[in-house]
Amino acid sequence: MNFLSDNAASPCPEVLAAIMAAAPAGTRAYDGDDISARLDAAFGAVFGQPCTVLPVLTGTAANALALAALVPPYGAIVCHDEAHIHVDECGAPEFFTGGAKLLLVPGADGKLTPAGLDHGLAAHRGDVHQVQVRALSLTQATECGTVYTPAELAALCGHARQRGWRVHLDGARFANALARLNCHPGDISCRAGVDILSLGMIKNGGLLSEALLVFDPALVDDLRFRRKRAGQLPSKGRFQAAQLLAMIEGDVWLRNARAANAGADALAAAAAGRLLYPVEANEVFVQLRPGEAEALRAEGFQFYDWGAAGADEARFVVAWDTPPAHVAALAAALSR
Amino acid sequence: MNFLSDNAASPCPEVLAAIMAAAPAGTRAYDGDDISARLDAAFGAVFGQPCTVLPVLTGTAANALALAALVPPYGAIVCHDEAHIHVDECGAPEFFTGGAKLLLVPGADGKLTPAGLDHGLAAHRGDVHQVQVRALSLTQATECGTVYTPAELAALCGHARQRGWRVHLDGARFANALARLNCHPGDISCRAGVDILSLGMIKNGGLLSEALLVFDPALVDDLRFRRKRAGQLPSKGRFQAAQLLAMIEGDVWLRNARAANAGADALAAAAAGRLLYPVEANEVFVQLRPGEAEALRAEGFQFYDWGAAGADEARFVVAWDTPPAHVAALAAALSR
Amino acid sequence: MNFLSDNAASPCPEVLAAIMAAAPAGTRAYDGDDISARLDAAFGAVFGQPCTVLPVLTGTAANALALAALVPPYGAIVCHDEAHIHVDECGAPEFFTGGAKLLLVPGADGKLTPAGLDHGLAAHRGDVHQVQVRALSLTQATECGTVYTPAELAALCGHARQRGWRVHLDGARFANALARLNCHPGDISCRAGVDILSLGMIKNGGLLSEALLVFDPALVDDLRFRRKRAGQLPSKGRFQAAQLLAMIEGDVWLRNARAANAGADALAAAAAGRLLYPVEANEVFVQLRPGEAEALRAEGFQFYDWGAAGADEARFVVAWDTPPAHVAALAAALSR
Amino acid sequence: MNFLSDNAASPCPEVLAAIMAAAPAGTRAYDGDDISARLDAAFGAVFGQPCTVLPVLTGTAANALALAALVPPYGAIVCHDEAHIHVDECGAPEFFTGGAKLLLVPGADGKLTPAGLDHGLAAHRGDVHQVQVRALSLTQATECGTVYTPAELAALCGHARQRGWRVHLDGARFANALARLNCHPGDISCRAGVDILSLGMIKNGGLLSEALLVFDPALVDDLRFRRKRAGQLPSKGRFQAAQLLAMIEGDVWLRNARAANAGADALAAAAAGRLLYPVEANEVFVQLRPGEAEALRAEGFQFYDWGAAGADEARFVVAWDTPPAHVAALAAALSR
Repeated sequence: MNFLSDNAASPCPEVLAAIMAAAPAGTRAYDGDDISARLDAAFGAVFGQPCTVLPVLTGTAANALALAALVPPYGAIVCHDEAHIHVDECGAPEFFTGGAKLLLVPGADGKLTPAGLDHGLAAHRGDVHQVQVRALSLTQATECGTVYTPAELAALCGHARQRGWRVHLDGARFANALARLNCHPGDISCRAGVDILSLGMIKNGGLLSEALLVFDPALVDDLRFRRKRAGQLPSKGRFQAAQLLAMIEGDVWLRNARAANAGADALAAAAAGRLLYPVEANEVFVQLRPGEAEALRAEGFQFYDWGAAGADEARFVVAWDTPPAHVAALAAALSR
Repeated sequence: MNFLSDNAASPCPEVLAAIMAAAPAGTRAYDGDDISARLDAAFGAVFGQPCTVLPVLTGTAANALALAALVPPYGAIVCHDEAHIHVDECGAPEFFTGGAKLLLVPGADGKLTPAGLDHGLAAHRGDVHQVQVRALSLTQATECGTVYTPAELAALCGHARQRGWRVHLDGARFANALARLNCHPGDISCRAGVDILSLGMIKNGGLLSEALLVFDPALVDDLRFRRKRAGQLPSKGRFQAAQLLAMIEGDVWLRNARAANAGADALAAAAAGRLLYPVEANEVFVQLRPGEAEALRAEGFQFYDWGAAGADEARFVVAWDTPPAHVAALAAALSR
Repeated sequence: MNFLSDNAASPCPEVLAAIMAAAPAGTRAYDGDDISARLDAAFGAVFGQPCTVLPVLTGTAANALALAALVPPYGAIVCHDEAHIHVDECGAPEFFTGGAKLLLVPGADGKLTPAGLDHGLAAHRGDVHQVQVRALSLTQATECGTVYTPAELAALCGHARQRGWRVHLDGARFANALARLNCHPGDISCRAGVDILSLGMIKNGGLLSEALLVFDPALVDDLRFRRKRAGQLPSKGRFQAAQLLAMIEGDVWLRNARAANAGADALAAAAAGRLLYPVEANEVFVQLRPGEAEALRAEGFQFYDWGAAGADEARFVVAWDTPPAHVAALAAALSR
Repeated sequence: MNFLSDNAASPCPEVLAAIMAAAPAGTRAYDGDDISARLDAAFGAVFGQPCTVLPVLTGTAANALALAALVPPYGAIVCHDEAHIHVDECGAPEFFTGGAKLLLVPGADGKLTPAGLDHGLAAHRGDVHQVQVRALSLTQATECGTVYTPAELAALCGHARQRGWRVHLDGARFANALARLNCHPGDISCRAGVDILSLGMIKNGGLLSEALLVFDPALVDDLRFRRKRAGQLPSKGRFQAAQLLAMIEGDVWLRNARAANAGADALAAAAAGRLLYPVEANEVFVQLRPGEAEALRAEGFQFYDWGAAGADEARFVVAWDTPPAHVAALAAALSR
């Protein structure tokens, strides 16, 4: 019973069907085909604002390309000190930006706040001897499975704007946050002040495509060249577009995210009183009792240790396709 | 009737079936799954030498990653002046290598020769004020649709070895060359002296995966980190491995390539006497007569102009899935 | 008798005196001192247009920093195929720009022309698969010791402007060209349409400082950060400023350049009828007779062979401080 | 009375004299002259081990080039969280390395310890999703004006070796540390296990040259190309070599450093009881009383505030040429 991550989940039936439907030979390669041509309008309608959709092949590429479009090589990106772009992308942001620096700021529950940014950057002078802060990168849902409210996001984006910073949102689990908040997708992206959204689809039922949603038209041309140059523009781009449309049309992304969130809620209820963070998406972090990790694994549950060695902290991730019986079994085990 | 390129052809049935079969959720993400685990042995058996197979998502990424593993940032890569890595990858080699330089050498029919290399590099001194040649990049089949024989490749690789250069082979249409030569795949790769092969599968019936075949084990670790850092390591890597195995197992790649080559042969026969280059793979370059381009397009044939504006040169590419009736129609038109 | 190059010539007395005068401890480091504060006004007065002067430590850094400010990493810089930035800087432009590409265009006597640019770039499509031409880099005086007239430069800059390209001028021997043309320095820089001038001082009597003259204020901030980040902002910047002012004030740069040019003229007269290029600055390229190179070296003349091996071509460079007796001796030898 | 920094101090007479002596035109440019040829032997004799000396033009370039030779682009460099390479070089290490990451570890008094490294890196997994630690960068004297003993340095280098990391030492104030420790220079560099030393000369009486001392011959070739490519190889390199030799020969560097250290000692005695860090080099950090900063500045003392705004912390730096009367005046003011 796999609670390691949602990142190797099965693609959902709509995505597979869309790939099959796109199989016949296309006249136009790259993103010149008829399916790709539908992306901007489809996502613009959902997000309530015109945007340009640039499919890319991995979340790492999505984040790193977005940051490269937002900061110069001597720039800096402010992010949470547990952000995926810092911890788990093997320096991809540094590679794509030409060596920009991530400035790390801590924050409770995986979340940043305007006051936390002020405090964390108090010693940064910003003269010619230092990297220049040009962007803020936020993560929704966060690495701790928590969610920024629309008001929190808007406050952070406003804080960035006042300082002349652009805003990137790493939305590897954007749909999980959206399903939880039950708000308009624009409320936690373009309307809040986000310039570029890395919209994750793969964890939520996709196969091999994420999407960059670019809300500032001035950034688009630059990103097209960077995408090609980074080897992120496949000649059969119609298969990426088909996946993305399958997720967004008919609210498949929300259906999938709701299923994963519901599983996480069930686990959270079973682990009440010993949750490390509020459960607001599809990840559950639990303070285990001595010996409990071994016991759970002996029962067939797979999951990652969290925190420092010996801390007896565990992360359980529920995917859109995690069997409800597996969730029920883990909930029962945790509530013992 | 589409003779523009083979790069947007349909994926072949075996590839689509393999993707469907890989759909169930995988326990291990990235390349830790059971399908990915089969790659090295499968390709090693076909190529007759142990190798490491690193799936990547586009041909541009395959080439650029390979070059980054072979030369330092102050290095130079020697290639044909029409090479795809120079002309059509938006500077990806420069990006991935950290700014290495491509040194361009001309050659008849898209092919390099040892003597041509000597002549083309005669003015390159190689002192500290100049970039350092560290790799030779060859293309098989070439941009002109021609093919290096095993002996020609071995001579070029030997020339490189003598000078301490590594050898990269851009095999976007490797299968077409292989099908034409009817030799062992090792004869035009590892046995000839190639260090890394960018093995193209997408043009030949794949969907969203190419492969790097690394024949020098000393290069593998470096490439793994570079691949991750470049956003070329998707979490659902099993879908890449499944495509690659579907192509190589059962000789699907050869079957597809032969079909494309046969179509090209038919066109070549029809255009005998006015071919710009020998037809040795699946591309046919023809000297058109005045007005012929317009006439062909009026009949529904799609193709690219070649060469300088007004040169009346055309490129016709036959894909594995180009309908034989389309080929026959074009052959008839060309032989008029 | 050293005719190898002017690049190791002695610093002139005014430069040495200025360094001594700047020796007392400065209150403000980097470029915050009183001497540095005089640069913009001093050069602005000479060039007839407000400009920002950014001292850098080598000509390679000057060129590479300028190009990095003018093109994005996916950009291309058009230059002559013998340009120093391509041939002799070990890939510095590629390093500083983050991997931009130099597109090479040939041209007689080391010079480019608008028609030559059109012809040389005829095959460059400029779509997303290709690097984007964003700058033209010219050299004055050229690598062949020739000089662009103000009209020629203005035509090239106009050609660039029409295409949206910026213009960089490598002026490693700018003073030699200026002394020859006897025009206003602005006529072959800012007034002609140059955005950034790499103004060489070291070959012409300086010690360890060149200067970037930035005529477009919008480029300055970016360059300040890039300069620091490249390790080109020494803490004792007053010594750079002192050198630059010593050269420009009192027309020392012109005095020195005229001396070098006069020596070259004497050699040109002696080698009349076998000059490879017109002698318009301080370099003289001569077609030697069989055995003449050895004979000259036996007499104590040091110089570089030029062109292909065995071509019997020689380059003689006269520096500002080359003893007139050495020039006379070489002239006598060449006229034999 | 200037206690801001030692970085704009006057060059010492020996350095100025050496520059004058090097003025006559050199036959060989770059580092091919007779003065440059003496560097390796001179420094090898002083450090007690053969080494290659590569002059560079700034401390930022020295550090960044060294790190580029030690880690791949996907590498990481561990350093103190107040290290100059992180705080004050505008991202130069990221630029020169092609985007490697600095991993920051805190430590008391500006110093790292093996235990501190273990603790600070406990969460770093080192799998393919993370940057790979390949080097440790230490600073001697530290940013807090403290000094590692030979035993402390050897322990840190040993810790690094065990993990396969290379060691870089930022010695911007190496001479100050050496003068304090009164040990052999090799004891705090090559003999302790340092691979590359950035040896600062500019703060200690030099003009425009620092030096890289490379103790591992395998690193030298790579560094030569990187140096050229970074615009750090001036054609009149003899002036750099002359400065470096003037400092090392006759123990000028130690004489100068002792003078600066003695001034710092006098200030430390005057501020006893309110020093923020032990005074072991030429920097003195003092906890001021409310209003004291303003009072000192009113008396003509220039210095930087330190720490957080309003913390009433001050940094006083004594240079080799700070007038003793100024030191005495400040000491008197501090002891009031």
